Parts: sequence; C-alpha cells; structure tokens
Amino acid sequence: MRKIESHGSFGGTQEVWAHDATSTSCEMRFGVFLPPQAQHTPCPVLYFLSGLTCTEQNFIQKSGMQRYAAEHGLIIVSPDTSPRGEGVPDAEGDDIGLSAGFYVDATQAPWSAQYRMQSYVTQELPTLVEAHFPASDMRGITGHSMGGHGALICALRNPGFYRSVSALAPICSASRGWGRKAFAAYFGEDADTWRRWDACDLLRASKEKFPLLVDQGDADPFLEDKLQPDLLRAACDAGGHALDLRMRRGYDHGFYFVASFVGDHVAHHAAALTRA
Amino acid sequence: MRKIESHGSFGGTQEVWAHDATSTSCEMRFGVFLPPQAQHTPCPVLYFLSGLTCTEQNFIQKSGMQRYAAEHGLIIVSPDTSPRGEGVPDAEGDDIGLSAGFYVDATQAPWSAQYRMQSYVTQELPTLVEAHFPASDMRGITGHSMGGHGALICALRNPGFYRSVSALAPICSASRGWGRKAFAAYFGEDADTWRRWDACDLLRASKEKFPLLVDQGDADPFLEDKLQPDLLRAACDAGGHALDLRMRRGYDHGFYFVASFVGDHVAHHAAALTRA
Repeated sequence: MRKIESHGSFGGTQEVWAHDATSTSCEMRFGVFLPPQAQHTPCPVLYFLSGLTCTEQNFIQKSGMQRYAAEHGLIIVSPDTSPRGEGVPDAEGDDIGLSAGFYVDATQAPWSAQYRMQSYVTQELPTLVEAHFPASDMRGITGHSMGGHGALICALRNPGFYRSVSALAPICSASRGWGRKAFAAYFGEDADTWRRWDACDLLRASKEKFPLLVDQGDADPFLEDKLQPDLLRAACDAGGHALDLRMRRGYDHGFYFVASFVGDHVAHHAAALTRA
Repeated sequence: MRKIESHGSFGGTQEVWAHDATSTSCEMRFGVFLPPQAQHTPCPVLYFLSGLTCTEQNFIQKSGMQRYAAEHGLIIVSPDTSPRGEGVPDAEGDDIGLSAGFYVDATQAPWSAQYRMQSYVTQELPTLVEAHFPASDMRGITGHSMGGHGALICALRNPGFYRSVSALAPICSASRGWGRKAFAAYFGEDADTWRRWDACDLLRASKEKFPLLVDQGDADPFLEDKLQPDLLRAACDAGGHALDLRMRRGYDHGFYFVASFVGDHVAHHAAALTRA
C-alpha cells in the first residue's frame, strides 16, 4: 500500500492509495475519503463505482461528496474502473477494455487474466480497506452509469455483504444496453453467462429483496438506448423489489448531475449503515 | 454570445458561454451558474477568478459552489485566466502568459495588446453579464491563488463597483511573490507601475476601507514564498482594513481546500449582496 495523495477536505482527508492487486494482477489505485469521525471511531464504508472513461480521480474531484460524507461520518472508497498498466488488454472504443471493466470477472482470453473487477471490488478491496483504515464491516455500494450497473450486480451477486445499494443513472441491463460490446468480448457469445452479470436478470431471479434508490436525469442523452430504466422498473416489479426511481427534470448524464444528487445517496446509505 | 455548455445543477443551470471580447481581442469563455431564483428575479452576481494553469472549467467542475449559490440565490460568473487562441503571446513557465493573465492590463509589448484582463473582468464582462442574464448590479468578487490577488486588485482599483470582496489562498503581494516574473514582463522594470497592481500597496494607500475575508491552508506548500499572507496582514493593519484571515489546519493549495471553504465565501458575499 502506497499513499499517492493526501488532502485536507471538509475536516477529514481525501487520500489516494496504490497497491499491487492479486485479483487483477496489476497496480490498482483507489480514492478513500476519511471523515473527521474516523479519527476516533470505526466508520461504515460506502463504495462508489465510477463510469466509462473514468479513473479513481473523477468522482473524488468532481462530485463534492466529501461534504456529505463528513456530515454523516462515512468513509467513501472509490476504485478505478479497470485494470491498468503495460500489457493490460485494450480494444477500440470507450465501452470496452481500459476504463470499461464493467465490474465483472471476464471468462474469455485475453480478458480473463486481468479483467476481474468483480473479485477486486467485492473481495480484495473490502478486505484491504477493513484491514488498513478505521472501517467497520458495515458496507454500502453505489455508482454512476457503468458504476451504477456495477453497484447493482455487486450487491445482487453477494447477498448480505452490502447493507444498502443505490445508483445514479445506471446502465440497468448491461447485456441489452451499453455493455453488449464488452460482454461479447469478456464472456463470448454465451447468453446464459451474460444473464448472470445483468442487473435486471439478477433482480428477476433474486429471492432476497433489494430496496433500490435510483436517480436519473430526464435530459440524459443515453436514457433510452443505453441506460434503459424502464427495464429496471419491470425487473423490480417482477422480482418484488421496492424501487425508488427519481426522474430528475433537466439533468444530463455528467458530473453536474452526480454532484446535485450524491448528497441524497450518501444520506440514504448513512441511514442504513448507521442503524443499530 | 454563444452557449457552449448547459447542465442542470442543484435546481439551476451551469452554463459556459463564448464571445468575441474587445478588451483582449480574442474569443473568451466564461462559466455562469444561474440559480433557481434567477428564473423569477434578478440575482446578485459573484465573480470568481481562478488561479494559474486554470481555465473557466476548473472552478465550475471541482468547487461544488453550485450548491451554495443555489441556496443563496447568487449568480456565479467564472472567467478564464488569460486571453487565448492563435497568436496570443506566451512564454516559458506556468506563471506567465497563457493561464497567467494576473488580472492586470499589461503595458509592455508583446503583452499589452491582449493581456488586458483587468479591463475584461471589471468592465467588459460585467456589462455583458448584466445585459444578457437576469443579473442585478449588486456585485461581489472572490478568487483563488492568482485569482485571489485578482479579486483584491479588482475591488481596490474600482472602489464602489463591488459590494464585497474575499479570497482563498491569495497571492497577497504579486510584485513581491508569485507575480514577479509576470510583472517584469507585462510592466517592464518600472517599480511604480508594479505597485499599482499589488494588493498590499493598494491596501496601504486606499482611503476607502475594505473588510476582507481570506481563507488560507497552513499546509499550503506555497505559503511563505509565493502567497505571503503576513504581508497582507501588515498592509491591512497599516491601511486600517478589517481582515478576517482564517488559517485552516491541514489544508493545502488545491481544489479540495477551495471546495471545503467556498461555501463560507458564498455565504459571506450573499450576506453583503442581498442586504437591503
């Protein structure tokens, strides 16, 4: 573990750490905001998964989440979006390869050796975080766009591991929307495998009930073709999950949208994670 | 006037506009946040001047100021930091030329034709803003680093034009600190001219009293050599200006510092600008 950055922020500290990850066989970086409360007591951890083209930097620089995390006493951990470094496979396009790990464990060469972001995010990273920071084992998970998909599948595939889950403008059905190209590469043409990494299919099949908070801008240019919140609503109805889908008038897909509503998500997770 | 960007943000709109500026003889861009209140009534305007290496983008993306501006009903206008475009003079180094206009009107060739940011910020831009947006003529000015210097000299050289002035980690005495290289280029070696663009000299000479709010991180690596808040304190004492200088423990010079305290500055200006 190497500390790359440390900045005072809202009475706490915004840090960036690097470590040699075994699940992805490369150096990985992640952001961690330590609220002032963490100086005295272990705090719950909210994981935030970012979208296509992002690194660990976008969310920590642009969301303003530190203010809310400091208010509520949450640690916020924001990993990178794919393995990186020399020799890591890539392909043409923003929606596959570098910055487009889709939080899955790939099964097809050349991706399967290092594109194992599901293992990284749900196993290696929480173990590391809970060993090195004043973190309790109360965990929530959220994310934006590809990271919203990531948050949903991480929670759905690991029942009980996260106490709360939410998403901002998520890719709701990656195998039918923005993830088709990546899924075809990472999993090959086996449709059964795709379903096991698609939030809507997982919601339909899940016996455990997942109450979901989702914010979505109605001026988002990717709404109908790539994000598909209608599919999420149908899947939640079919699976009996309570979905609080908030359509936000005049908001697009970018960080001005995320910054406007991330406070609601931090408060939502804080309520679940600090409950006795 | 051409609208380059428009994003929903905290119930208002974050926009970026471009126009052909006469004072700098080039296209200039600026950010403007329109709070929800501006849909119904003219709002006061807070100008935010950015620091070295910045464009109009850094502050609008990274400060989180929109939340506070929406709360208080302020329009926030954030100009670029220098003229730009083909043929605009530049020189080696981050502290001269492009992104380093220092909010002065240069007198020396080749700078004097376009490096006229004082005229741009205090005359052309307010005229444009008050003609095109639902803006009242109640104006405040603030800024960060080079832009903190800019806010101070804009207010001090134009008594009565701004109702309130503050700064975050300002270059307090540009002619003695971070501006020496630029001043020597923009004004030549005439020390009398330098003094007319140095906040500390202006404060010592000013008959009008300027109450100042300044935040400064004590872990700022540029504190002693380049920012020099001690000189500001001495100048305010000598000139009889009330200085509220808040040294912030553990904060550095970057946008995590700005984001942590910009809310205090927006509230400070709102109190002055919305007073009857």
